[in-house]
Parts: sequence; structure tokens; C-alpha cells
Amino acid sequence: MNPGSATGAGFALHPQLAADTHPIGELPLCRVLLMDDARFLWCLLVPRRAGVREIHELPESDRRQLWDESHRLTLAMRAVRTGDKFNLAALGNQVPQLHLHHLWRRVGDTAWPAPVWGTGQAIPYAAATATALCRRLWRQLTDAAAVSHRKAP
Amino acid sequence: MNPGSATGAGFALHPQLAADTHPIGELPLCRVLLMDDARFLWCLLVPRRAGVREIHELPESDRRQLWDESHRLTLAMRAVRTGDKFNLAALGNQVPQLHLHHLWRRVGDTAWPAPVWGTGQAIPYAAATATALCRRLWRQLTDAAAVSHRKAP
Repeated sequence: MNPGSATGAGFALHPQLAADTHPIGELPLCRVLLMDDARFLWCLLVPRRAGVREIHELPESDRRQLWDESHRLTLAMRAVRTGDKFNLAALGNQVPQLHLHHLWRRVGDTAWPAPVWGTGQAIPYAAATATALCRRLWRQLTDAAAVSHRKAP
Repeated sequence: MNPGSATGAGFALHPQLAADTHPIGELPLCRVLLMDDARFLWCLLVPRRAGVREIHELPESDRRQLWDESHRLTLAMRAVRTGDKFNLAALGNQVPQLHLHHLWRRVGDTAWPAPVWGTGQAIPYAAATATALCRRLWRQLTDAAAVSHRKAP
């Protein structure tokens, strides 16, 4: 649905991540996904690198790109929906493929102040809502103003 | 106990973080702390920047330094104790001062595969054990081989 660089050789999204998310788009390193849980504004970055489980397994250039894309995603999410506290995490204890959670939390949300993992049941988005939200996030991610937060390498 | 750059202007470690940890040392940007919980090898990075709650509030140069120090800490922890899966997180829903959790998890540890936050009660280290572990981690953090993983900027 969105333009992006070619998928990394041998990369395939883990079936559990595919089942739990809606695709937002492809950044130079990462696939960007929306978690199908309307309780939180919750996105994932998944580097298109086959077989990678840990951030420190990535070469330095990929790590820099990953954190740059994480920063862009954080700002794009903030532009779409205000929140009180950002949560960032790379856990992967259950799904080994490297993926980074990005969430804007709100004081008083259903899990607050606990972390979201393992808290209650996901509430799936209506299909049209998910599509519209993914489009808004992608627009922010590719917006010139958001990209300008990156300095040229 | 360890040499390091000057504490950032106006920075003071949050009392809750001070109460829950042992000091390991000072990297150029961050204070490095050992969580006083012998169930896990669990360290924190706290950027010495007063009033900062979110990673994206840091200027780009600090963000790069933060992720560089995070990488160094991850490798130092791995050198001290092997683990099965690394967990990295910036949450801060309860303690607002920006701090990054770094954990090497083991399959079958007391919280596995759930995240560690809110799982059971911390088991404090014996004082001598904490001191020895902090020294080993600091030695790894400042070891030439570990530092060589960083390329010159």
C-alpha cells in the first residue's frame, strides 16, 4: 500500500506479528505496523533483517537507522494522538523476531501505570478505523516537517 | 567511585531510582545503575539531563550518545553473565525521570516469558555481591575491547 525500499533478503514477518497488526508502511530499514488494539496507540518497528533477534546483533549503520526511524515514528504518533508518556520496548520473549514497541500512554488508560503487555484483552479496531489511522500515521511519517527532525547523516 | 564526566547542570537522580539501585559508574551521558534485584541481571541508564522525561526530548547528539552507551552496556552485561534474550525498555509511567531498563533474561527465570515489571518482589543483593558485580560491569564497560565496538564518530 505504501512505497518503500525492497524487503531485506530472506526477511518474512513473523506470523504472530502479522496476525496482531495492520501494515502502515515501509521505512528504509523497518516495516511499520499498527497493533490491532484500540485501547492504546501502539505501533511496532520491525527491521527487515532475516534472523535478527536482538538490537545489538545489527551492524552500527542499521542501529543508527533503527533509532532514527524510532524517533520519526514517535513524533508521527504524537502528531496523530496526544499522550502523557511514551513507552518504548524491545522484549521478544514470546515472538523472537526483533520488533520494537512504541506506545503513547495516557494517565488512566486501561493498564496505567503498569506496562501494557499481558494486561487484559486487545480490543480490535473496526476495519475502516484501522485503515484511516494507518493512513494518518503514514502521512505523518512521510511528512516533510517530520522528516526534517532528522539531520542529514 | 568511578571517574566520569561532570554531572549535568541541575541533574539529580530521582530518589526512587537511588533507593532501588547500586551505582556502577558514569559514562559521558548517562549514569549507570544496577537494579537491586538479584533475580535478574538488570541495569539502568539515566541521562544526566535535568527535567528530561522522554528520549525524543533529547537533542540528536544526546540521542546518538544514549544509544551508543546502551549498546556498550548491553555488551558489558553479556560479558558478565550470559542470557537468552535481551529486554530493553523506556517506560517511566511511575518514575518520570528518563531511565532505560536493560535486562538479560533467561528462559525459565521467575518472570519468564512475561516482562519483569510488577512481577513478584525484588530480592536484594548481599552488599558484597552487589559491589563485586558493579565492579565487574564497570570493568567491562571501560574495557578497550568493549569500547572498540564503537566506531569513532
